Amino acid sequence: MSDTNALDALIQALRRLPGVGVKSAQRMAFHLLQHDRPGAQLLAQALHEASAHVHHCERCHTFTEAQVCATCEDVRRDRSQLCVVETPADQSAMERTGAYKGLYFVLMGKLSPLDGVGPNDLGLKKLFERACDGVVQEVILATNFTAEGEATAYVIAEGLKTRGLRPTRLARGVPVGSELEYVDLGTIAHALVDRR
Amino acid sequence: MSDTNALDALIQALRRLPGVGVKSAQRMAFHLLQHDRPGAQLLAQALHEASAHVHHCERCHTFTEAQVCATCEDVRRDRSQLCVVETPADQSAMERTGAYKGLYFVLMGKLSPLDGVGPNDLGLKKLFERACDGVVQEVILATNFTAEGEATAYVIAEGLKTRGLRPTRLARGVPVGSELEYVDLGTIAHALVDRR
Repeated sequence: MSDTNALDALIQALRRLPGVGVKSAQRMAFHLLQHDRPGAQLLAQALHEASAHVHHCERCHTFTEAQVCATCEDVRRDRSQLCVVETPADQSAMERTGAYKGLYFVLMGKLSPLDGVGPNDLGLKKLFERACDGVVQEVILATNFTAEGEATAYVIAEGLKTRGLRPTRLARGVPVGSELEYVDLGTIAHALVDRR
Repeated sequence: MSDTNALDALIQALRRLPGVGVKSAQRMAFHLLQHDRPGAQLLAQALHEASAHVHHCERCHTFTEAQVCATCEDVRRDRSQLCVVETPADQSAMERTGAYKGLYFVLMGKLSPLDGVGPNDLGLKKLFERACDGVVQEVILATNFTAEGEATAYVIAEGLKTRGLRPTRLARGVPVGSELEYVDLGTIAHALVDRR
């Protein structure tokens, strides 16, 4: 296939997507070229538009096309609560619960020393400034319950405490609908300690 | 995320890739926008170039940017042999063996009545014309050894026989490096029947 530089270039470009290896990239390229050229054009256009217009909300740091995102602009939201999440996907999960009416701060990542992501790379300074604006009463740490997410929550909590704020963390416990027999022991232990 | 139409459009466009659901599409979009905007631009450009310039070789039907692909143009190839494969990826696997020096015909699919792909959709007429050009002495059927691949090979073989050609099929047998104990029984049975 030495005379198909455009095809090779497409396969290489598709490999930059997370979780896509050479076989998947080939399959995607062949599929688009053989069965879905309008899809290829659409994707090219969408990539171009998104790269050009999507940037970070200057208040909560999530993706938006405006200067300030719709959630931050929404006057019905409770401005005294600030929920810290790792990604827009996590923010979206929080929103879909319908149980939270405050504002967000989206870290767009997590502390991960192995990948070279330290407190400065995450922009924690901006979060601390935001949390200390005088309006925010409660910071809810909703980073993931993974090793990195917990470490991130710990670092943020320490930073907030030195600034006189008392952050809260999402409760750890037994998931809704689960049978104790099949829940891992660490979770049950946490649920026992945090019983109410 | 109602104010990020470009982001939503990108997620929807990524879902058109085979094997990409909504979670993967989100992850890909966030990754490109957060960590790899040059990658997004590169992919957009590659998609655009490939859609515009890659089409089918008029002799073997594989993807190429020229009118006739490099393999078909190559004067060192044996023009008396024609190997029928399903996809350019299969062709590439054949090439990498280094054991085949003839030409190819790439079906760009397989018979699949459940998906509405019949003999006319596969362009078998073009294959039969190609095989009956007087130069081709042997047609090697190298479709996959799946139900659809076998059905495709059968239909092509029947078509070639009515035109006075005797097609051959890749040998079925025990894979190199395998222990009989762990080889499936159908394969051993085939290897026994086709013993040499």
